[in-house]
Amino acid sequence: MIQGKVYLVGAGPGDPGLMTVKGLKYLQSADVIIYDALVCEQILTETRPDVELIYVGKTCNHHMMEQDQINALLVQKAQENKGVVRLKGGDPFVFGRGGEEIEALAAHGIPFEVVPGISAGVAVPAYAGIPVTHRKFASSFALVTGHEDPTKSRSNIAWDKVATGVDTLVFFMGLHNLRQIVDELIKQGKSPTTPVALIQEGTRPSQNTLTGTLENIVSLAEERAIKPPAIIVVGEVVRLRDTARWFDNRPLAGKRVLVIRHKPEDSILQDILAEYGADPVDMLVPNIADRVKQIPFSKTVPMIDAASIMRGNKRLSEGEIDIVTFASSAAVCGLLPLLDNEGDALASVTTACIDPATAETAREKGLRVDIVAEDNTALGLAKALLEAYERRL
Amino acid sequence: MIQGKVYLVGAGPGDPGLMTVKGLKYLQSADVIIYDALVCEQILTETRPDVELIYVGKTCNHHMMEQDQINALLVQKAQENKGVVRLKGGDPFVFGRGGEEIEALAAHGIPFEVVPGISAGVAVPAYAGIPVTHRKFASSFALVTGHEDPTKSRSNIAWDKVATGVDTLVFFMGLHNLRQIVDELIKQGKSPTTPVALIQEGTRPSQNTLTGTLENIVSLAEERAIKPPAIIVVGEVVRLRDTARWFDNRPLAGKRVLVIRHKPEDSILQDILAEYGADPVDMLVPNIADRVKQIPFSKTVPMIDAASIMRGNKRLSEGEIDIVTFASSAAVCGLLPLLDNEGDALASVTTACIDPATAETAREKGLRVDIVAEDNTALGLAKALLEAYERRL
Repeated sequence: MIQGKVYLVGAGPGDPGLMTVKGLKYLQSADVIIYDALVCEQILTETRPDVELIYVGKTCNHHMMEQDQINALLVQKAQENKGVVRLKGGDPFVFGRGGEEIEALAAHGIPFEVVPGISAGVAVPAYAGIPVTHRKFASSFALVTGHEDPTKSRSNIAWDKVATGVDTLVFFMGLHNLRQIVDELIKQGKSPTTPVALIQEGTRPSQNTLTGTLENIVSLAEERAIKPPAIIVVGEVVRLRDTARWFDNRPLAGKRVLVIRHKPEDSILQDILAEYGADPVDMLVPNIADRVKQIPFSKTVPMIDAASIMRGNKRLSEGEIDIVTFASSAAVCGLLPLLDNEGDALASVTTACIDPATAETAREKGLRVDIVAEDNTALGLAKALLEAYERRL
Repeated sequence: MIQGKVYLVGAGPGDPGLMTVKGLKYLQSADVIIYDALVCEQILTETRPDVELIYVGKTCNHHMMEQDQINALLVQKAQENKGVVRLKGGDPFVFGRGGEEIEALAAHGIPFEVVPGISAGVAVPAYAGIPVTHRKFASSFALVTGHEDPTKSRSNIAWDKVATGVDTLVFFMGLHNLRQIVDELIKQGKSPTTPVALIQEGTRPSQNTLTGTLENIVSLAEERAIKPPAIIVVGEVVRLRDTARWFDNRPLAGKRVLVIRHKPEDSILQDILAEYGADPVDMLVPNIADRVKQIPFSKTVPMIDAASIMRGNKRLSEGEIDIVTFASSAAVCGLLPLLDNEGDALASVTTACIDPATAETAREKGLRVDIVAEDNTALGLAKALLEAYERRL
């Protein structure tokens, strides 16, 4: 990273795994990060401890900063000789106003670099099981901003041509104008039976997809109270979701799992659970055995783990956890002294232990155990969860 | 990674830094990788040593495998309970035939996951300094396959609507049909003065961009002998390249730099050179001082470094290196015994040393030294190169 330079980095659509390798490298070495509302907060945990984080996104429909203020801030930080990352949701050049920021930088002679990001316009449909192109159904697709009011006298959108000129249409920020978009498309000759998908929280564990047709999508969206932001996909490719769906129908889709472990190496369980669709929340607890051996507390629980303990407790007490997994007896013993309200919150979640010995420890400590894996491996524990949940479905 | 599952991973447009974090993780743990022509070979060095690599791309316009053979291979490898990565250039669903592969997997009940990639349709223009959308110039853009023959009786492309219905048009695989594309667009009402860009080898150090208008791009492309594959961008946003260009005008753009070092830690120089636009080639040589101390050769030069020595020598002897940098006196001493033809190839390249002591060693060994940095840091060496080259430009 070069000082006095600005890096326009696309953060992708939400899943932190969709950040690019290069973008992550710049994020990790940045002096200053200026970021938007659509950026997944989890990505910001990868930064330097002394990084300056500046939020310039929207709050309750009001921008924290106008575009020209953001431009001025980028110029100022670069002129202070900082390594500046401008982090934007999706891709900086797909309705991201990156072009305007670069014009401001160029006007001041400030060097810049662009690190493209995965655009929500392609990835969000992909996570909903909808390929935007397909040899049989779509040889072109267009991304359109749905933000403008299509009833205004002169629309920027050539509805007469877009409606039937391109096979797949993806609208950004269009949910507020859904009725007008649908009306225009039908009026300009798109068949009322054309399939439509609305996708909220795309690529996140909470992703929610509603499908229908141009004819009925407005009333379906009202019934289900779909709220912005959402991506709108219009075209025959939406039908492929029946076959190509993979993300939101995984066995543990949407299950929020608190993973209790006492060794940093145990993080593989989170990766496996995430692959099966769960939303893992990590909690690294002190190793009670180590404490008995008089190793100072500060050595076994560095700062980042204290944060994980606070976060885990908070989500447990707010009822935001479905399953708690214990990766060892030490994890059970390490957790219990740390729980708020004497562990009342554990009474209403499903508990799972990695092996019978861990289950025995948990029961000795007065916990109810719902699921017990046999072989003391992360994969075994994940499979025990799958069996339990598929049986219940 | 789950065994018996297929991961459709987008490799991005060419720059290996544009691979996603999640895609890289799956690539590193895959049992089998089935990959295409458009995938940057450098990405494949990140895999397990025992990985099975299967190339299914094109050779001289012939597909190594037809699509249904690829589908069958994916099914077979998954049924053998392997962790299978299907690695595709760009994004699997943007003209990548990912949809068809998923239909085959679903038909056999094989689990799959999609990891979107950075599409060339957005990133290649971005690396050429062209934002595909811009608040003033483009509120919609379309990606179109230019592969079909537009003179055939029924085109899949609705030229009458696409020509003027969408602000920015990006054609994939369209260079063979450039004349027909241009003729159709003008015939359907696009102004002949509309700016056009052709971008070859996008996002790679060898990226080459040609700009013109609908009127003159065909003759310009013939003059410059532009060859496929190339991305074609049509629209007012092409004009923004004058301001937003950042990649191919960097001070060391296109310079092939052989970085000689004897410590694995010294790789920071490559990162810095790459940021200034150079195409760094790494060469890790044995530490001669260590060898004097009787440390076995095999301990100081693991396999991967032997490969770097062969690669460096080959590129030097084929005249594919512009600059050689020496990161220490030990690097000079380590390199010389390894050079083919007694180092003749060094006579025709620019040589740069990290500090005066290294320069002295080089001269003692009979080398000509062109550039000498002062402060023995990677940044200092990079800056000395910049000064030397900006002076020459």
